[in-house]
Amino acid sequence: MGLEAEPLAVPHPYWPRDLELRRYVPNDRPTWHSLSFLFSASAALLTLTWLAAGWRGWTGAPMRTGRRLAICWFAICGFIHGVIEGWFSLYHTEIPGDQCFLSQLWKEYAKGDSRYVIEDNFTVCMETITAWAWGPLSLWTVLAFLQRQPHRYVLQLVVSLGQLYGDVLYFYTEYREGFAHSEMWHPLYFWFYFVFMNALWIIIPSILLLDAWGHLSAAQRALDAVKAKKH
Amino acid sequence: MGLEAEPLAVPHPYWPRDLELRRYVPNDRPTWHSLSFLFSASAALLTLTWLAAGWRGWTGAPMRTGRRLAICWFAICGFIHGVIEGWFSLYHTEIPGDQCFLSQLWKEYAKGDSRYVIEDNFTVCMETITAWAWGPLSLWTVLAFLQRQPHRYVLQLVVSLGQLYGDVLYFYTEYREGFAHSEMWHPLYFWFYFVFMNALWIIIPSILLLDAWGHLSAAQRALDAVKAKKH
Repeated sequence: MGLEAEPLAVPHPYWPRDLELRRYVPNDRPTWHSLSFLFSASAALLTLTWLAAGWRGWTGAPMRTGRRLAICWFAICGFIHGVIEGWFSLYHTEIPGDQCFLSQLWKEYAKGDSRYVIEDNFTVCMETITAWAWGPLSLWTVLAFLQRQPHRYVLQLVVSLGQLYGDVLYFYTEYREGFAHSEMWHPLYFWFYFVFMNALWIIIPSILLLDAWGHLSAAQRALDAVKAKKH
Repeated sequence: MGLEAEPLAVPHPYWPRDLELRRYVPNDRPTWHSLSFLFSASAALLTLTWLAAGWRGWTGAPMRTGRRLAICWFAICGFIHGVIEGWFSLYHTEIPGDQCFLSQLWKEYAKGDSRYVIEDNFTVCMETITAWAWGPLSLWTVLAFLQRQPHRYVLQLVVSLGQLYGDVLYFYTEYREGFAHSEMWHPLYFWFYFVFMNALWIIIPSILLLDAWGHLSAAQRALDAVKAKKH
């Protein structure tokens, strides 16, 4: 081979097993570092937002448990979309060979979906929109509910539909590729990382979408009734 | 070559020029057949829906020009998503070698984006969701406005956001591939088919999204005010 030879593909834990990665450095942190960061940061945000939503100073009116939990959900989404997926959006080219904390988190997650270490085109586009649109809008949704802004349910609907559509495309594109980017049926990588973690963003946004639909339709019905009376 | 030799790639008008298509039959209908079908069917639907929206029997209340045009838009969307994109969703594997009318329309359009003749994974997924979700929901939106149903603006918001997100991903994925699937700057194929025809689904849904946002927020504001008075 001449001096201009391409670097050889390196060994890696990703699927399909014949996937060629030119740069990959195995994580030097144990898996529980990534997982405990994700879950403890989410739990801390949940607690803080729960307490914030309980403070009567915002609007004077007490909030139901379901509503408080929904606000906590959007706070966690703001963090995951803005910080974790934001990192992917910015550094997806470097992640396979990088040892920064969040890059290691993504290298770990990619064991359940290797599209995250090969700069898969759809994945980069969808994650970028998730990070830069649904991330900030999630935080705005938190604020909108705390301050009882009139567009709070519109924001809930927009963010939830955005998450749902993105996630449906995420599963659907991978289904059509025969789940080739994961070790099928692996309990941690396939079921927990790929299926369960993403199923959350199908189930919860679907519930919140229907909830927003109900609230907004009720508000429109009330306004229509008032206008009909006036005529 | 032995008997088991693969069929050779066939000549075709698509980009990139080295794209290998195994099956491709050139259209036997002239381009204006496809274009005139698309535009005359859309114009007919626009006229019919315009007249239907003007009929006072629905709700008794007259409708403003902008609202009537918006309803016409959703009728056209129902046709384009349900029929034209529905055809692609069902027959995307056969289209390159098929001579049915709608297959010829897609072979013509693909001169502006060859992802439609290579079963591009994202394109098939996005088009399938567009056809089977936004198609029927567009028609429901038409009916919801004609009958002044309380969820009419929710439907407008859902359909418009779905179209907008799908179309942003459509442009974004192709941008990241360097617009490789079209002859860049070609006046008809690149500018008209690819840019202009799709830009419509960025511009109009954006306007309708903001419109729905305004109406729904106003309804919620009115309901909040009524509730605040009661306390």
